[in-house]
Amino acid sequence: MQNDSAIKRAGDVDVRVRHSKEAVMTTTYALLAEEGLAGVTVDAVARRSGVAKTTIYRHWPSREALLLDVCAQMGPHFDIPDAGSLPDDLRALAHRVVEQLLSGPYAAILLSLMDAAERNPHLAALLAAAQTKLVEAVHAILVRARRRGELRRLPDPSNTAALILGPLLYRRLFSHERLSEAFFELVIDSVVR
Amino acid sequence: MQNDSAIKRAGDVDVRVRHSKEAVMTTTYALLAEEGLAGVTVDAVARRSGVAKTTIYRHWPSREALLLDVCAQMGPHFDIPDAGSLPDDLRALAHRVVEQLLSGPYAAILLSLMDAAERNPHLAALLAAAQTKLVEAVHAILVRARRRGELRRLPDPSNTAALILGPLLYRRLFSHERLSEAFFELVIDSVVR
Repeated sequence: MQNDSAIKRAGDVDVRVRHSKEAVMTTTYALLAEEGLAGVTVDAVARRSGVAKTTIYRHWPSREALLLDVCAQMGPHFDIPDAGSLPDDLRALAHRVVEQLLSGPYAAILLSLMDAAERNPHLAALLAAAQTKLVEAVHAILVRARRRGELRRLPDPSNTAALILGPLLYRRLFSHERLSEAFFELVIDSVVR
Repeated sequence: MQNDSAIKRAGDVDVRVRHSKEAVMTTTYALLAEEGLAGVTVDAVARRSGVAKTTIYRHWPSREALLLDVCAQMGPHFDIPDAGSLPDDLRALAHRVVEQLLSGPYAAILLSLMDAAERNPHLAALLAAAQTKLVEAVHAILVRARRRGELRRLPDPSNTAALILGPLLYRRLFSHERLSEAFFELVIDSVVR
Protein backbone atom coordinates (compact mmCIF):
# COMPACT_ATOMS: atom_id res chain seq x y z
CA MET A 1 0.00 0.00 0.00
CA GLN A 2 2.71 2.41 0.98
CA ASN A 3 4.52 1.68 -2.29
CA ASP A 4 1.35 2.14 -4.33
CA SER A 5 0.60 5.54 -2.88
CA ALA A 6 4.24 6.55 -3.26
CA ILE A 7 3.97 5.65 -6.95
CA LYS A 8 0.65 7.46 -7.16
CA ARG A 9 2.18 10.54 -5.58
CA ALA A 10 5.18 10.39 -7.90
CA GLY A 11 2.74 10.10 -10.82
CA ASP A 12 0.85 13.19 -9.61
CA VAL A 13 4.10 15.08 -9.39
CA ASP A 14 4.99 14.02 -12.94
CA VAL A 15 1.64 15.24 -14.22
CA ARG A 16 2.00 18.53 -12.33
CA VAL A 17 5.53 19.01 -13.67
CA ARG A 18 4.35 18.28 -17.20
CA HIS A 19 1.44 20.71 -16.87
CA SER A 20 3.57 23.51 -15.50
CA LYS A 21 6.21 22.99 -18.20
CA GLU A 22 3.50 23.11 -20.85
CA ALA A 23 2.02 26.26 -19.32
CA VAL A 24 5.43 27.93 -19.34
CA MET A 25 6.11 26.98 -22.96
CA THR A 26 2.67 28.04 -24.21
CA THR A 27 2.98 31.35 -22.39
CA THR A 28 6.47 31.94 -23.75
CA TYR A 29 5.21 31.29 -27.26
CA ALA A 30 2.26 33.68 -26.77
CA LEU A 31 4.51 36.44 -25.38
CA LEU A 32 6.95 35.95 -28.26
CA ALA A 33 4.15 36.32 -30.78
CA GLU A 34 2.63 39.37 -29.10
CA GLU A 35 5.69 41.34 -28.08
CA GLY A 36 8.70 39.84 -29.79
CA LEU A 37 11.81 38.50 -28.14
CA ALA A 38 12.23 41.57 -25.92
CA GLY A 39 8.82 40.88 -24.33
CA VAL A 40 9.89 37.46 -23.07
CA THR A 41 11.32 37.83 -19.58
CA VAL A 42 11.15 35.13 -16.94
CA ASP A 43 9.17 37.59 -14.80
CA ALA A 44 6.56 38.08 -17.51
CA VAL A 45 6.30 34.33 -18.17
CA ALA A 46 5.89 33.63 -14.44
CA ARG A 47 3.24 36.33 -14.02
CA ARG A 48 1.16 35.19 -16.96
CA SER A 49 1.51 31.41 -16.60
CA GLY A 50 1.06 31.40 -12.84
CA VAL A 51 4.16 29.18 -12.53
CA ALA A 52 6.67 30.36 -9.92
CA LYS A 53 9.99 31.75 -11.17
CA THR A 54 11.87 29.20 -9.04
CA THR A 55 9.98 26.41 -10.82
CA ILE A 56 10.76 27.90 -14.23
CA TYR A 57 14.45 28.11 -13.35
CA ARG A 58 14.37 24.48 -12.13
CA HIS A 59 13.47 23.36 -15.69
CA TRP A 60 15.42 25.93 -17.69
CA PRO A 61 18.65 27.38 -16.31
CA SER A 62 18.17 30.70 -18.15
CA ARG A 63 15.75 32.79 -20.18
CA GLU A 64 17.76 31.90 -23.24
CA ALA A 65 17.49 28.15 -22.58
CA LEU A 66 13.70 28.53 -22.35
CA LEU A 67 13.57 30.50 -25.60
CA LEU A 68 15.76 27.99 -27.43
CA ASP A 69 13.58 25.12 -26.20
CA VAL A 70 10.34 26.80 -27.24
CA CYS A 71 11.70 27.83 -30.65
CA ALA A 72 13.21 24.41 -31.36
CA GLN A 73 9.90 22.67 -30.62
CA MET A 74 7.95 25.09 -32.81
CA GLY A 75 10.11 25.10 -35.81
CA PRO A 76 9.11 23.71 -39.16
CA HIS A 77 7.70 20.17 -39.02
CA PHE A 78 6.52 19.51 -42.54
CA ASP A 79 6.48 16.24 -44.41
CA ILE A 80 7.91 16.41 -47.92
CA PRO A 81 5.21 16.80 -50.59
CA ASP A 82 4.92 14.12 -53.29
CA ALA A 83 2.44 15.51 -55.82
CA GLY A 84 3.87 13.81 -58.90
CA SER A 85 5.68 16.67 -60.67
CA LEU A 86 8.48 19.10 -59.87
CA PRO A 87 6.40 22.31 -60.07
CA ASP A 88 3.58 20.77 -58.01
CA ASP A 89 5.99 19.50 -55.35
CA LEU A 90 7.81 22.85 -55.09
CA ARG A 91 4.52 24.77 -54.98
CA ALA A 92 3.18 22.50 -52.22
CA LEU A 93 6.39 22.94 -50.22
CA ALA A 94 6.24 26.73 -50.67
CA HIS A 95 2.67 26.75 -49.36
CA ARG A 96 3.63 24.67 -46.32
CA VAL A 97 6.55 26.94 -45.49
CA VAL A 98 4.35 30.03 -45.75
CA GLU A 99 1.69 28.41 -43.54
CA GLN A 100 4.18 27.20 -40.95
CA LEU A 101 6.86 29.87 -40.90
CA LEU A 102 5.39 33.04 -42.34
CA SER A 103 1.79 33.10 -41.09
CA GLY A 104 0.06 34.24 -37.94
CA PRO A 105 2.18 34.53 -34.83
CA TYR A 106 5.09 32.59 -36.29
CA ALA A 107 6.05 35.39 -38.71
CA ALA A 108 6.66 37.81 -35.84
CA ILE A 109 8.54 35.14 -33.87
CA LEU A 110 10.70 34.28 -36.86
CA LEU A 111 11.62 37.96 -37.29
CA SER A 112 12.44 38.32 -33.61
CA LEU A 113 14.68 35.28 -33.94
CA MET A 114 16.33 36.55 -37.12
CA ASP A 115 16.94 39.87 -35.40
CA ALA A 116 18.39 38.33 -32.25
CA ALA A 117 20.45 35.84 -34.31
CA GLU A 118 22.49 38.81 -35.59
CA ARG A 119 23.86 39.12 -32.06
CA ASN A 120 23.43 35.60 -30.64
CA PRO A 121 25.16 32.57 -32.20
CA HIS A 122 22.87 30.05 -30.40
CA LEU A 123 19.83 31.55 -32.09
CA ALA A 124 21.72 31.75 -35.40
CA ALA A 125 22.34 27.99 -35.07
CA LEU A 126 18.61 27.44 -34.55
CA LEU A 127 17.85 29.29 -37.80
CA ALA A 128 20.55 27.30 -39.57
CA ALA A 129 18.86 24.08 -38.39
CA ALA A 130 15.51 25.25 -39.81
CA GLN A 131 17.26 26.16 -43.07
CA THR A 132 18.86 22.67 -43.20
CA LYS A 133 15.44 21.03 -42.90
CA LEU A 134 14.14 23.17 -45.75
CA VAL A 135 17.13 22.38 -47.97
CA GLU A 136 16.72 18.65 -47.24
CA ALA A 137 13.08 18.83 -48.32
CA VAL A 138 14.03 20.67 -51.54
CA HIS A 139 16.79 18.13 -52.17
CA ALA A 140 14.39 15.18 -51.83
CA ILE A 141 11.99 16.86 -54.29
CA LEU A 142 14.78 17.52 -56.80
CA VAL A 143 16.13 13.95 -56.58
CA ARG A 144 12.65 12.58 -57.28
CA ALA A 145 12.21 14.93 -60.24
CA ARG A 146 15.61 13.86 -61.60
CA ARG A 147 14.54 10.20 -61.34
CA ARG A 148 11.32 10.97 -63.21
CA GLY A 149 13.41 12.57 -65.96
CA GLU A 150 12.18 16.12 -65.30
CA LEU A 151 15.70 17.43 -64.68
CA ARG A 152 18.81 16.85 -66.75
CA ARG A 153 21.03 17.63 -63.79
CA LEU A 154 20.52 18.12 -60.08
CA PRO A 155 20.67 21.80 -59.10
CA ASP A 156 22.13 22.89 -55.75
CA PRO A 157 19.14 22.51 -53.40
CA SER A 158 20.19 25.43 -51.21
CA ASN A 159 20.10 27.70 -54.28
CA THR A 160 16.66 26.41 -55.21
CA ALA A 161 15.46 26.95 -51.63
CA ALA A 162 16.69 30.56 -51.65
CA LEU A 163 15.11 31.31 -55.05
CA ILE A 164 11.72 29.98 -53.92
CA LEU A 165 11.54 30.97 -50.28
CA GLY A 166 13.38 34.30 -50.63
CA PRO A 167 10.64 36.12 -52.57
CA LEU A 168 7.98 34.77 -50.18
CA LEU A 169 9.96 35.89 -47.14
CA TYR A 170 10.54 39.30 -48.78
CA ARG A 171 6.82 39.89 -49.39
CA ARG A 172 5.68 38.61 -46.07
CA LEU A 173 8.30 40.17 -43.78
CA PHE A 174 9.70 43.18 -45.65
CA SER A 175 7.35 44.68 -48.24
CA HIS A 176 4.09 43.45 -46.64
CA GLU A 177 2.57 42.78 -50.05
CA ARG A 178 -0.04 40.09 -50.48
CA LEU A 179 1.12 36.56 -51.34
CA SER A 180 -1.30 35.82 -54.18
CA GLU A 181 -1.63 32.46 -55.94
CA ALA A 182 -0.29 34.22 -59.08
CA PHE A 183 2.85 35.22 -57.17
CA PHE A 184 3.48 31.60 -56.04
CA GLU A 185 3.08 30.60 -59.69
CA LEU A 186 5.56 33.25 -60.84
CA VAL A 187 8.13 32.17 -58.24
CA ILE A 188 7.88 28.47 -59.10
CA ASP A 189 8.00 29.29 -62.83
CA SER A 190 11.16 31.38 -62.49
CA VAL A 191 12.90 28.42 -60.83
CA VAL A 192 11.57 25.53 -62.93
CA ARG A 193 12.29 27.10 -66.34
CA MET B 1 27.39 96.31 -32.27
CA GLN B 2 24.71 94.95 -30.01
CA ASN B 3 22.84 93.54 -33.01
CA ASP B 4 25.98 91.95 -34.41
CA SER B 5 26.76 90.07 -31.23
CA ALA B 6 23.12 89.01 -30.88
CA ILE B 7 23.36 87.50 -34.38
CA LYS B 8 26.69 85.92 -33.50
CA ARG B 9 25.21 84.41 -30.36
CA ALA B 10 22.19 83.10 -32.28
CA GLY B 11 24.62 81.57 -34.80
CA ASP B 12 26.55 79.86 -31.99
CA VAL B 13 23.32 78.43 -30.64
CA ASP B 14 22.41 77.12 -34.10
CA VAL B 15 25.78 75.40 -34.40
CA ARG B 16 25.46 73.92 -30.91
CA VAL B 17 21.94 72.68 -31.68
CA ARG B 18 23.10 71.12 -34.93
CA HIS B 19 26.04 69.42 -33.22
CA SER B 20 23.92 68.01 -30.42
CA LYS B 21 21.26 66.76 -32.89
CA GLU B 22 23.98 65.09 -34.94
CA ALA B 23 25.49 63.51 -31.84
CA VAL B 24 22.08 62.14 -30.81
CA MET B 25 21.39 60.70 -34.26
CA THR B 26 24.83 59.14 -34.66
CA THR B 27 24.56 57.59 -31.20
CA THR B 28 21.06 56.27 -31.92
CA TYR B 29 22.32 54.66 -35.12
CA ALA B 30 25.28 53.08 -33.31
CA LEU B 31 23.04 51.70 -30.53
CA LEU B 32 20.58 50.34 -33.10
CA ALA B 33 23.38 48.55 -34.91
CA GLU B 34 24.91 47.13 -31.74
CA GLU B 35 21.88 46.16 -29.72
CA GLY B 36 18.84 46.33 -31.97
CA LEU B 37 15.73 48.38 -31.45
CA ALA B 38 15.34 47.27 -27.84
CA GLY B 39 18.75 48.76 -27.01
CA VAL B 40 17.69 52.25 -28.04
CA THR B 41 16.28 54.06 -25.02
CA VAL B 42 16.43 57.82 -24.54
CA ASP B 43 18.42 57.13 -21.36
CA ALA B 44 21.03 55.11 -23.25
CA VAL B 45 21.26 57.72 -26.03
CA ALA B 46 21.69 60.54 -23.48
CA ARG B 47 24.34 58.62 -21.53
CA ARG B 48 26.42 57.77 -24.58
CA SER B 49 26.04 61.00 -26.57
CA GLY B 50 26.52 63.28 -23.56
CA VAL B 51 23.41 65.24 -24.65
CA ALA B 52 20.90 65.85 -21.83
CA LYS B 53 17.58 63.99 -21.96
CA THR B 54 15.68 67.29 -21.80
CA THR B 55 17.56 68.47 -24.91
CA ILE B 56 16.76 65.22 -26.73
CA TYR B 57 13.08 65.55 -25.87
CA ARG B 58 13.15 69.19 -27.09
CA HIS B 59 14.03 67.94 -30.61
CA TRP B 60 12.08 64.67 -30.66
CA PRO B 61 8.87 64.35 -28.66
CA SER B 62 9.35 60.59 -28.13
CA ARG B 63 11.79 57.71 -28.50
CA GLU B 64 9.76 56.56 -31.49
CA ALA B 65 10.00 59.95 -33.22
CA LEU B 66 13.79 59.80 -32.82
CA LEU B 67 13.94 56.26 -34.22
CA LEU B 68 11.75 57.16 -37.20
CA ASP B 69 13.89 60.20 -37.96
CA VAL B 70 17.15 58.25 -37.79
CA CYS B 71 15.82 55.37 -39.89
CA ALA B 72 14.28 57.67 -42.52
CA GLN B 73 17.56 59.55 -42.97
CA MET B 74 19.59 56.37 -43.25
CA GLY B 75 18.32 54.94 -46.25
CA PRO B 76 18.32 53.63 -49.00
CA HIS B 77 19.76 56.42 -51.16
CA PHE B 78 20.92 54.80 -54.39
CA ASP B 79 20.91 56.27 -57.86
CA ILE B 80 19.49 54.04 -60.56
CA PRO B 81 22.19 52.12 -62.48
CA ASP B 82 22.46 52.62 -66.25
CA ALA B 83 24.94 50.00 -67.43
CA GLY B 84 23.49 49.50 -70.93
CA SER B 85 21.70 46.13 -70.61
CA LEU B 86 18.90 44.68 -68.50
CA PRO B 87 20.98 42.00 -66.72
CA ASP B 88 23.80 44.47 -66.02
CA ASP B 89 21.40 47.10 -64.64
CA LEU B 90 19.60 44.58 -62.42
CA ARG B 91 22.89 43.12 -61.19
CA ALA B 92 24.23 46.60 -60.36
CA LEU B 93 21.01 47.45 -58.49
CA ALA B 94 21.16 44.16 -56.56
CA HIS B 95 24.76 44.92 -55.53
CA ARG B 96 23.81 48.41 -54.34
CA VAL B 97 20.88 47.11 -52.30
CA VAL B 98 23.07 44.49 -50.65
CA GLU B 99 25.73 47.11 -49.88
CA GLN B 100 23.25 49.63 -48.52
CA LEU B 101 20.57 47.52 -46.87
CA LEU B 102 22.07 44.15 -46.10
CA SER B 103 25.67 44.85 -45.10
CA GLY B 104 27.42 45.85 -41.92
CA PRO B 105 25.32 47.49 -39.23
CA TYR B 106 22.40 48.16 -41.57
CA ALA B 107 21.42 44.47 -41.80
CA ALA B 108 20.82 44.28 -38.05
CA ILE B 109 18.97 47.59 -38.07
CA LEU B 110 16.78 46.48 -40.96
CA LEU B 111 15.87 43.30 -39.10
CA SER B 112 15.07 45.22 -35.93
CA LEU B 113 12.82 47.45 -38.02
CA MET B 114 11.16 44.51 -39.77
CA ASP B 115 10.57 42.90 -36.40
CA ALA B 116 9.11 46.04 -34.81
CA ALA B 117 7.05 46.78 -37.95
CA GLU B 118 5.02 43.64 -37.18
CA ARG B 119 3.65 45.53 -34.18
CA ASN B 120 4.08 49.20 -35.17
CA PRO B 121 2.34 50.68 -38.24
CA HIS B 122 4.63 53.75 -38.34
CA LEU B 123 7.67 51.53 -38.79
CA ALA B 124 5.76 49.37 -41.30
CA ALA B 125 5.12 52.59 -43.31
CA LEU B 126 8.86 53.32 -43.23
CA LEU B 127 9.61 49.88 -44.71
CA ALA B 128 6.91 50.41 -47.32
CA ALA B 129 8.59 53.68 -48.32
CA ALA B 130 11.94 51.89 -48.75
CA GLN B 131 10.18 49.20 -50.80
CA THR B 132 8.57 51.91 -53.00
CA LYS B 133 12.01 53.40 -53.76
CA LEU B 134 13.29 49.96 -54.75
CA VAL B 135 10.30 49.25 -56.99
CA GLU B 136 10.69 52.66 -58.67
CA ALA B 137 14.34 51.87 -59.42
CA VAL B 138 13.39 48.46 -60.87
CA HIS B 139 10.62 50.10 -62.89
CA ALA B 140 13.02 52.66 -64.42
CA ILE B 141 15.41 49.84 -65.37
CA LEU B 142 12.62 47.79 -66.97
CA VAL B 143 11.24 50.77 -68.93
CA ARG B 144 14.71 51.46 -70.32
CA ALA B 145 15.17 47.79 -71.28
CA ARG B 146 11.76 47.83 -73.01
CA ARG B 147 12.80 50.92 -75.02
CA ARG B 148 16.03 49.18 -76.04
CA GLY B 149 13.94 46.24 -77.27
CA GLU B 150 15.19 43.81 -74.61
CA LEU B 151 11.66 43.14 -73.31
CA ARG B 152 8.55 42.38 -75.30
CA ARG B 153 6.31 43.54 -72.46
CA LEU B 154 6.85 45.37 -69.19
CA PRO B 155 6.73 43.00 -66.18
CA ASP B 156 5.27 44.16 -62.86
CA PRO B 157 8.28 45.88 -61.23
CA SER B 158 7.23 44.86 -57.70
CA ASN B 159 7.31 41.20 -58.79
CA THR B 160 10.76 41.68 -60.33
CA ALA B 161 11.97 43.40 -57.15
CA ALA B 162 10.73 40.51 -54.98
CA LEU B 163 12.30 37.86 -57.24
CA ILE B 164 15.69 39.60 -57.16
CA LEU B 165 15.90 41.00 -53.66
CA GLY B 166 14.06 38.14 -51.92
CA PRO B 167 16.79 35.51 -52.39
CA LEU B 168 19.46 38.03 -51.30
CA LEU B 169 17.48 38.97 -48.19
CA TYR B 170 16.91 35.27 -47.44
CA ARG B 171 20.61 34.43 -47.60
CA ARG B 172 21.78 37.45 -45.70
CA LEU B 173 19.16 37.59 -42.94
CA PHE B 174 17.77 34.05 -42.61
CA SER B 175 20.11 31.30 -43.78
CA HIS B 176 23.36 33.24 -43.24
CA GLU B 177 24.88 31.72 -46.39
CA ARG B 178 27.49 33.61 -48.37
CA LEU B 179 26.31 35.90 -51.19
CA SER B 180 28.72 34.79 -53.89
CA GLU B 181 29.03 36.39 -57.34
CA ALA B 182 27.70 33.11 -58.77
CA PHE B 183 24.57 33.45 -56.63
CA PHE B 184 23.95 37.00 -57.90
CA GLU B 185 24.31 35.61 -61.43
CA LEU B 186 21.83 32.81 -60.73
CA VAL B 187 19.26 35.23 -59.30
CA ILE B 188 19.51 37.68 -62.22
CA ASP B 189 19.37 34.78 -64.72
CA SER B 190 16.23 33.31 -63.16
CA VAL B 191 14.49 36.69 -63.61
CA VAL B 192 15.82 37.72 -67.03
CA ARG B 193 15.05 34.43 -68.78
